[in-house]
Order: sequence, then structure tokens, then C-alpha cells
Amino acid sequence: MQGLFVVVEGPEGAGKTTLVEGLAGRLREAGHRVLEVREPGGTETAEAARALVLDPDKQWSPAAELFLILAARAELVQQVIGPHLDEGGWVVLSDRFELSTEAYQIAGRGLPREEVLAANRLATGGLGPDLTLVLDIPPEIGRERQGAQGKSPDRMEQEDAALHDRVARAFREAGGPGVVHLDATVPAERLESDAWEVLSARLDGTQ
Amino acid sequence: MQGLFVVVEGPEGAGKTTLVEGLAGRLREAGHRVLEVREPGGTETAEAARALVLDPDKQWSPAAELFLILAARAELVQQVIGPHLDEGGWVVLSDRFELSTEAYQIAGRGLPREEVLAANRLATGGLGPDLTLVLDIPPEIGRERQGAQGKSPDRMEQEDAALHDRVARAFREAGGPGVVHLDATVPAERLESDAWEVLSARLDGTQ
Repeated sequence: MQGLFVVVEGPEGAGKTTLVEGLAGRLREAGHRVLEVREPGGTETAEAARALVLDPDKQWSPAAELFLILAARAELVQQVIGPHLDEGGWVVLSDRFELSTEAYQIAGRGLPREEVLAANRLATGGLGPDLTLVLDIPPEIGRERQGAQGKSPDRMEQEDAALHDRVARAFREAGGPGVVHLDATVPAERLESDAWEVLSARLDGTQ
Repeated sequence: MQGLFVVVEGPEGAGKTTLVEGLAGRLREAGHRVLEVREPGGTETAEAARALVLDPDKQWSPAAELFLILAARAELVQQVIGPHLDEGGWVVLSDRFELSTEAYQIAGRGLPREEVLAANRLATGGLGPDLTLVLDIPPEIGRERQGAQGKSPDRMEQEDAALHDRVARAFREAGGPGVVHLDATVPAERLESDAWEVLSARLDGTQ
């Protein structure tokens, strides 16, 4: 089969990382070659940009934050995602991609849509996901879950509740080709089986 | 008087840094408040982005290189250049600005013009120079001068001659409002007095 690019999106605490791991396991059991990546990051250079943008000691303007994320995305797409998809036979699973830019930088930070989308096209060269799984969760539940994990928050997670509400609304209202919404308030096992149903149907369709 | 934003542009080895220092001295002698900045850089965060993009051990894709430069520009404009111009009474002198992006990232690297200009608008918020002094010099002379300085080249300076020729052509052909070309093959003192003539005329016009 040709490659398939699958992205898991949603606000903090929705369960993206756990879901990506679960889906990767199921894909491997089903005999697929799987590449897991996360944004921002995924290459040495992209991780360097990630470290800058998430550093709680640095204050980046909204535009600078966008550009660091896009620098990381450009590296990830050109060095990792693109080559795997070109090779064929791989399922690339990404924890976040361009929908997060729409949610955080456009809806959350208020950067102008057209310019941000133009900049994003520079980063991706037009390569986008075949399937985007959006995890729907009310922002207050996401924040509760994050707090329960006891991790110290990075710079993005420290932002105020109003921003996270705008971000959550942008995720909830996201649509378009290949975008599927999943209820992420259910237990993690249930979310994984719901997501697997969508993903395996899509894989059957591409084989 | 209101603030004046002056940018010195041109290929490597044209004498930008020396000229900026010379003009800053003349401006101070004439009683002006002067802020000297350089791109990429000029704030703690912008210098962090600069260090990444110029690191000779890192290979950035053209788009990632652009985004790191724009991250630095966004910080410099919003934290330093913008506030000084808003305050009034300052002459801001910058060693490179957005014309360098046209020369290196569009002409040199071949990134698509419209998307790069849209991304640059995000970085600058539309703030551009009142006066751009472009130092015209054949690229081979610029390279000779650089070699004579005995500095070890950073990542941009290591690029091949064909790229630097495209960059030099873009600088040579640059035009538009506020763009003035200066012959930079003349001795540095002569270049400084030529530039001062243009700059002082412009200052007389704004007072």
C-alpha cells in the first residue's frame, strides 16, 4: 500500500500521546510499519527549535512562537515524514500537526489566518494528513487531567484559561477532508477502540 | 522629529557593519539618539534563534532557515525597533532587514515569493525601513574581503558561489520606495561619506 499520514489532534490533556502509542501498537500487530512522531520536534534540529519555543524562561511573541514551530515542522516534513511517505508502506502517526497551528496560533493567539496558512504551506510544501483524528474534550477536563499527571507545565501549558478556551473551540469546530472527531471524555481504552475503528476502515480503503 | 528606521543591506563583505558603526558615530555627533541593531539577533530570544540558524554543525532546510530568521525578526521588531520608533526621536540603524530575506531566501534559496512575503508581514507587522542603503559590490570582491578578515565562516558564508551570485544580483536589482544604492567598491571612508550625504538629506527632510 502507499503511505498513510495520520495525525492526532486536540487540546492539552485530551489523551493524544496515549492514543498515538495505542494505535501504533495495534498497527504493528496488524503487520504495518509504523513511524511515530510528535510536533514540534522529531529531528535533531526540530528538537532544538522545540526546546526554544517551550522554554518557560523565554517570552516569545506570538509570531516568533509560530515561526519556531514552523521551523520544526519544515525539518520534520522534509527529513522524516516526506521520505517515509514517498517510500510507501509506512503509516506515519503524528502527535499534532497543522491543525494545532490553526487552533493555537490563529484562534488562540489571534495571528492573521491568511498569512499563517501561507507560512504553513512553506513549512509543509503542501503535504498534509490523510486522516486527522480530533479528540474532543471540554478544556476544563483537559486541565484537570494535566494537573493529575503532576508534570510541571511548559510555557504553552501555563497560558491562561481564555486562550485555552479559544483553542478548544477551534479544535471542536475543525472540519474538512479527512477530519474525524472522537469523544475523548470516554475511558482511554474506549477512545482507542473508537479511533482504531476509523483508522482500520481507512487502511482497508487504501489497500 | 519622529523616529527614522534606516537599514544597511548588501552581500557579505560589502562593508555593512563598518558603515553602520560609522553612521552611528556621525549621527551621535550630530545630536541624534541612535540605536544600532543587527539581524538576525538583537534580543536575548532573537540571539538564541540566530545561534541556531548560523550553527555550522546544523543543516536547516531553506524553509526552516527562513522561519528561524523570521522568529528573530519578530522579536527584534516587537521588543526593540517598534518601541523606539513609537517613542520618537530615535534613529534605528539595522545591519540587514527584510531585503536580506528577499535576497537570501527567495533569490538565493528559491523559496516562493508570495508565501515568504506573507510570512515576513507576520514577523514585522508591516513595519518597514524608511531608508534602505544597499551596498553594491561584485560577489567575488565581497568574498575576497571576507577571506582577508581571516574569520572562520558561519553556515551562511560557507554556501556555494552560485547562491551568492543570485543573492548579489537580488541586492543589485532591489528597488522601491526608500531604497538607495551605493557603490561599495570605494574605500570605506568614501562609502561612509556617500551614505552620510543620503542619510543627512533624509534627516533634514523629516525634521
